[in-house]
Amino acid sequence: MSKDCLVQCSANYMPLSPISFLERAAAIYGDKVSIVYGDQRFSWKETHQRCFKVASAFVHLGISRHDVVAAFAPNIPALYELHFSVPMAGAILCALNIRLDSPTLSLILQQLEAKAILVDHQHIEVVLQALDRLSQTKSNPPLLILIPEFDQSSSSPIDLDLPPGTLNYNDLLQVKAEPNFQILRPNNECDPISVSYTSGSTGNPKGVLYSHRAVYLNSLAAIFQSDMRKMPVFLWTVEMFRCNGWCFPWAVAALGGTNICLRNVSAKLIFEAIHLHKVTHLCGAPSILNILANASGNDQTREIKSRVEIIVAGALPAPQVLIKVAELGFNVSHGYGMTEALGPAIVTPCKPDQKQSQYNLMMEGVDVKDPNTMKSVEFDGKTMGEIMFRGNTLMLGYLENSKPVHEVFKGGWYRTGDLAVRHPDGYIQMKDRARDIIICGGEIISTLEVEAVLLTHPQVLEAAVVGRYDEVLGETPCAFVKLKEGFSDGGEASSRVIKEFCEGKLPGFMVPKVVIFGDLPSPTGKIQKFVLREKANLVGGQE
Amino acid sequence: MSKDCLVQCSANYMPLSPISFLERAAAIYGDKVSIVYGDQRFSWKETHQRCFKVASAFVHLGISRHDVVAAFAPNIPALYELHFSVPMAGAILCALNIRLDSPTLSLILQQLEAKAILVDHQHIEVVLQALDRLSQTKSNPPLLILIPEFDQSSSSPIDLDLPPGTLNYNDLLQVKAEPNFQILRPNNECDPISVSYTSGSTGNPKGVLYSHRAVYLNSLAAIFQSDMRKMPVFLWTVEMFRCNGWCFPWAVAALGGTNICLRNVSAKLIFEAIHLHKVTHLCGAPSILNILANASGNDQTREIKSRVEIIVAGALPAPQVLIKVAELGFNVSHGYGMTEALGPAIVTPCKPDQKQSQYNLMMEGVDVKDPNTMKSVEFDGKTMGEIMFRGNTLMLGYLENSKPVHEVFKGGWYRTGDLAVRHPDGYIQMKDRARDIIICGGEIISTLEVEAVLLTHPQVLEAAVVGRYDEVLGETPCAFVKLKEGFSDGGEASSRVIKEFCEGKLPGFMVPKVVIFGDLPSPTGKIQKFVLREKANLVGGQE
Repeated sequence: MSKDCLVQCSANYMPLSPISFLERAAAIYGDKVSIVYGDQRFSWKETHQRCFKVASAFVHLGISRHDVVAAFAPNIPALYELHFSVPMAGAILCALNIRLDSPTLSLILQQLEAKAILVDHQHIEVVLQALDRLSQTKSNPPLLILIPEFDQSSSSPIDLDLPPGTLNYNDLLQVKAEPNFQILRPNNECDPISVSYTSGSTGNPKGVLYSHRAVYLNSLAAIFQSDMRKMPVFLWTVEMFRCNGWCFPWAVAALGGTNICLRNVSAKLIFEAIHLHKVTHLCGAPSILNILANASGNDQTREIKSRVEIIVAGALPAPQVLIKVAELGFNVSHGYGMTEALGPAIVTPCKPDQKQSQYNLMMEGVDVKDPNTMKSVEFDGKTMGEIMFRGNTLMLGYLENSKPVHEVFKGGWYRTGDLAVRHPDGYIQMKDRARDIIICGGEIISTLEVEAVLLTHPQVLEAAVVGRYDEVLGETPCAFVKLKEGFSDGGEASSRVIKEFCEGKLPGFMVPKVVIFGDLPSPTGKIQKFVLREKANLVGGQE
Repeated sequence: MSKDCLVQCSANYMPLSPISFLERAAAIYGDKVSIVYGDQRFSWKETHQRCFKVASAFVHLGISRHDVVAAFAPNIPALYELHFSVPMAGAILCALNIRLDSPTLSLILQQLEAKAILVDHQHIEVVLQALDRLSQTKSNPPLLILIPEFDQSSSSPIDLDLPPGTLNYNDLLQVKAEPNFQILRPNNECDPISVSYTSGSTGNPKGVLYSHRAVYLNSLAAIFQSDMRKMPVFLWTVEMFRCNGWCFPWAVAALGGTNICLRNVSAKLIFEAIHLHKVTHLCGAPSILNILANASGNDQTREIKSRVEIIVAGALPAPQVLIKVAELGFNVSHGYGMTEALGPAIVTPCKPDQKQSQYNLMMEGVDVKDPNTMKSVEFDGKTMGEIMFRGNTLMLGYLENSKPVHEVFKGGWYRTGDLAVRHPDGYIQMKDRARDIIICGGEIISTLEVEAVLLTHPQVLEAAVVGRYDEVLGETPCAFVKLKEGFSDGGEASSRVIKEFCEGKLPGFMVPKVVIFGDLPSPTGKIQKFVLREKANLVGGQE
């Protein structure tokens, strides 16, 4: 067949970009509510207009294609809007974790060479400190743009000592968009749209780049994973600075849904939002389940009229928490993923009869492989291998000076560094992070399995297990445990109780040799096992 | 920002192709039912294996990348499987309208240069005639592969005089796939996957080419348009040879749903399938609504337990039919599209309060434009313009010797040839095919509007209006009417009744001057107005 007849032109080919979702939402769902924030409401037409204006202002301020625009804000409407306005200016969004300290932030800003940083008024201090540090290097400081609280007009003076030249987000919105301004769509759909920093469970934050194509497709994958239909009501409990809120800012626009923005998360606010706005979906870290399960009776008794879908990613809490949350009327699924895969790539319903590894629709391959031979492991529930992914919803790469991307993509698969077995029905059971596994006298110990047992103890709130150096065995398991409120640790006595609890439930070599009580270090939401490992080796044997 | 860090490799980029949907369905929904056909059941694992085997057999038979494989079959499992097996062999599927006559079929086969044609046993005669005609040209005849009825084993002799070398579909399945056979995924996602012939409302069948990328994205769009969730049950009432069944063969695989295949469509079979298999979705020409509304009470009384979504594309039937179908428990939407746009591109719920033009999620632009200036028309409900589309779910082009594609893509938009107005709320109201419009003494008459009035007459089953030459006015409207069963046309008397019926409801110049009774020509499912126009001008004035 001759190919003369095939045409690729602007009529039948346009680079995939989630910008299109906003344009379509404005055209089809124009008068429907796009964002709710406290008493504030926006329509999709308004959100589109606001993003268009801000994009125009960015270009006017000299931000060019592929420049980085950073943001330091909680889940407020402005951060939602930046997910569209920054790409509409051709630039790359970096939504930063608002729990970063100023030294780390200043390092990241230096690496990013951000042209501008938009900062929520409540989080300005740490950014000013970071900028101060940055000014001691040769780096060009980013333009600072303050996001005031919503009802503050731009003219009201802000009680802060801001550097000269600081702009105000409201001013960007009040600038009349250039009449001839045209948004800068990507020339190529594989151009970068955003950079996300991993939360540093290894102590080495990495800037992970996403493409327009990847986030477009992953937004659709997120819709399928969360079983969304037209016009969902999405409650913002997952932070937009985590893998761009798992692509939900774009996914909700694709379906003309409503975003319920929350500055802070609490049981009261969640139940109130469900009641007031008929929330259909919410996501986040598993701690959200603890918040729901432990809410006061007052909050919980608000009737949940229709099914609310929750996806949590991270280590699951104790089984009784899951049961309680299900009783309250939530439908919980457990996501497994990472920043490099744009968030949860595998989502499994938290139901005993549904042990399916439902990987994301756009993932082309999900496998457990021997990392040396690249052969798939047997479906025997025993042989361990590394979980590997391939597909269009993986990162473009790491920012320079970060981890070499060729290493993690070696062999044409993304190597997650996580170990798992494959069951006869195909179910992928995660065993541990490759670096977290404990090898104790030749026996392999999955720290996740030990943690799962610890969490079934009625007094345990959080638990983490790491390897501790042992002259004879190489390593032995050391448990860090945070007890529930009202339970005080009785030192060695409690330690014995915990160990005895484990003894009936785990093989002897898996029972923690040392138990340490106290808060677990998770400054950015993920438990830092590298900190615990250091601590474990400093503590004298309490065996 | 340096771009050294960006990587495009097989880990994070794979050409989009709906082949992936089948592979994923086999991995995740392996034991779930993929296809039901009479008593026959397949699982997704089986469907994947069968398609893999057939793909391997195609390659073994010498079919190469970009060769065309034609099919001539109703909605049987084999035609479903070919939607995957042909692309898995790197080839291009052409599912042909089984109502084509042998002269047209032979012309199409000549144009296609098909390497093979798979033919349903009930439709072999017309294909044999077409091949006979083809043998009189210099064209290489395609390899003939017979698809027997499902329970016929390959060894049972077929009572047909088949040319030597004819193969049997069951034999392809029994061939052991080459152990090292690897499916031929597209090198480029814009490579063609299928060619669909428009049903020839203009009398000039055109071969329309689709790409892997377009059908991948349109499958997802179809899911959103029909509001499908995981594991839908899709009843095959829309023919797979129409724009590849609007991409639903691939969409259903993406969601791990169940395909209920039907060789023929009848009210009894539809209601039976809904009852037995809990059908969630069905699609088709609007005639399906007539079938449902006019079903015997016996069939209709079968309870419809949960909502069944229907999308129909084409001129809607009389309002009372819609009301009746809604009463039966169906949720009807009306699609507007064409082969060039891979099926319905705009879907509007058939509810008076929902006059939204919900265009397909992957459409980047839907507009009503002045075809000369390319300016959008005013949203005034009055100014007519041409409906135009742009986006990733449009055809690649026409097969050579067909209509020049540059003409329809001129200006970077696909020109539909359909006229419409835009209402203040954005709603696109279609007025007529550009070529079907009647200009009567300077007044523009939308034949659709006249037809809509005719269809409200209690005795009218079908109606079509065309222009008829008039010395004074240029053209006047001429109505072709088919009455419902039980009503006989009383010649001039009936004609007067129809005209009088219209008089109160339409401006004088829009009332048909001539009314002709009888069957309407629609050999391929779409009323051929070009035939009616000829007929109108042959008929003496009955004014």
